Amino acid sequence: MLPIICTVDVVLLTLKDETLHVALLQRDHPPFAGVLALPGGYIHADEDVDTGDAASRMLREKTGIRSPYLEQLATFSGRARDPRGWSISVVYYALVPWAVIAAAKHPEVALVAVEQVRALPFDHQQIIEAAVRRVRDKSTYSSLPVYLCGELFTLPQLQSVYEAILGAAINKVSFRRKIDELDILEPVTGSLDTGKAHRPAQLYRLKKRFGRQLSLSDRALNAKG
Amino acid sequence: MLPIICTVDVVLLTLKDETLHVALLQRDHPPFAGVLALPGGYIHADEDVDTGDAASRMLREKTGIRSPYLEQLATFSGRARDPRGWSISVVYYALVPWAVIAAAKHPEVALVAVEQVRALPFDHQQIIEAAVRRVRDKSTYSSLPVYLCGELFTLPQLQSVYEAILGAAINKVSFRRKIDELDILEPVTGSLDTGKAHRPAQLYRLKKRFGRQLSLSDRALNAKG
Repeated sequence: MLPIICTVDVVLLTLKDETLHVALLQRDHPPFAGVLALPGGYIHADEDVDTGDAASRMLREKTGIRSPYLEQLATFSGRARDPRGWSISVVYYALVPWAVIAAAKHPEVALVAVEQVRALPFDHQQIIEAAVRRVRDKSTYSSLPVYLCGELFTLPQLQSVYEAILGAAINKVSFRRKIDELDILEPVTGSLDTGKAHRPAQLYRLKKRFGRQLSLSDRALNAKG
Repeated sequence: MLPIICTVDVVLLTLKDETLHVALLQRDHPPFAGVLALPGGYIHADEDVDTGDAASRMLREKTGIRSPYLEQLATFSGRARDPRGWSISVVYYALVPWAVIAAAKHPEVALVAVEQVRALPFDHQQIIEAAVRRVRDKSTYSSLPVYLCGELFTLPQLQSVYEAILGAAINKVSFRRKIDELDILEPVTGSLDTGKAHRPAQLYRLKKRFGRQLSLSDRALNAKG
């Protein structure tokens, strides 16, 4: 049998200037050396427990980021996507606050607005589009966008994160009702936002048990509701 | 680098006696020769265009079924799941009416109620559970269950398919509203059900453009609604 190239790639998404950005890196090696692409690489069967573990290692090694919200997106495959031969890429997506990327201080990480991604090698453009679609879909009925917030945030801040992902304004009352229903937040006592509002706003954080697990709603949150 | 075993597996689901069943086959070769397992096998890089194509081939060769609704579920991987070594299985799920499996006449295909699946090799039990979860989730907001119906069906028949998948009775009025909203069906003129109802019931079929594409709703259909 012909050999198959087995890789993982990671779509690392963050919000910057209220816009979804993806982390890209210049490729070290051919094919496409020097070109911006998704962080990724070969699965190491002697080292990685499974593909999720390989994706965590890739993020750690290539971007300095540890243990964010990381979920399998899909597997991209075939004889056409890589000039080296028939390949499989098991793709994961990760969501982190922008401050986490900044703190990791990997100067080679380029953050590009997802709408402005162009001319990527392999099928990386198509992979990013699929990841953004997944994040938008999932944000309508889950707590996913919370992973783009810092540890502490106000409800208006969280609403603006949802709005940035969904690309539309959300009615404040239905947003609050949705967040209550998801039951993911706890108020932080004694901590108040020092922002520009006339009244100080209550700060919240994600309840501990949702550290890696989404809360789901059976009704979509969207621009209509 | 250590070699990685690259396979596809298919979770073929159907409704029989109003219960979700999965198609299993006795394995020909070690490991686990003679044991019931999901239809699957090695990717053939010289023959398959991509993993979806490999999954179609596997279904065709092992069950005689061609071109059903076939979608990627997820990839299962790691050093622990296969005694032969580090492996990747890209898993697809397919939905077909029971009559299609019967017509394919592959006597070696065993249909087992998904709740009664036991003692499968590899991680096939876990894979089937993930597929059933996906089908149930997706059925709450999409036209997916239609692929379990025959070509022609009445609305009460379609409702009972949804109810069988969701495992709960659905309110008839909200079901009809949901189906209208999905806008996937067209009435078949001149064809009437010859069943036991006092009034003959209108027959429907799936609109052509939904042959392979789901219609999605932004509100969940569930036992409550």
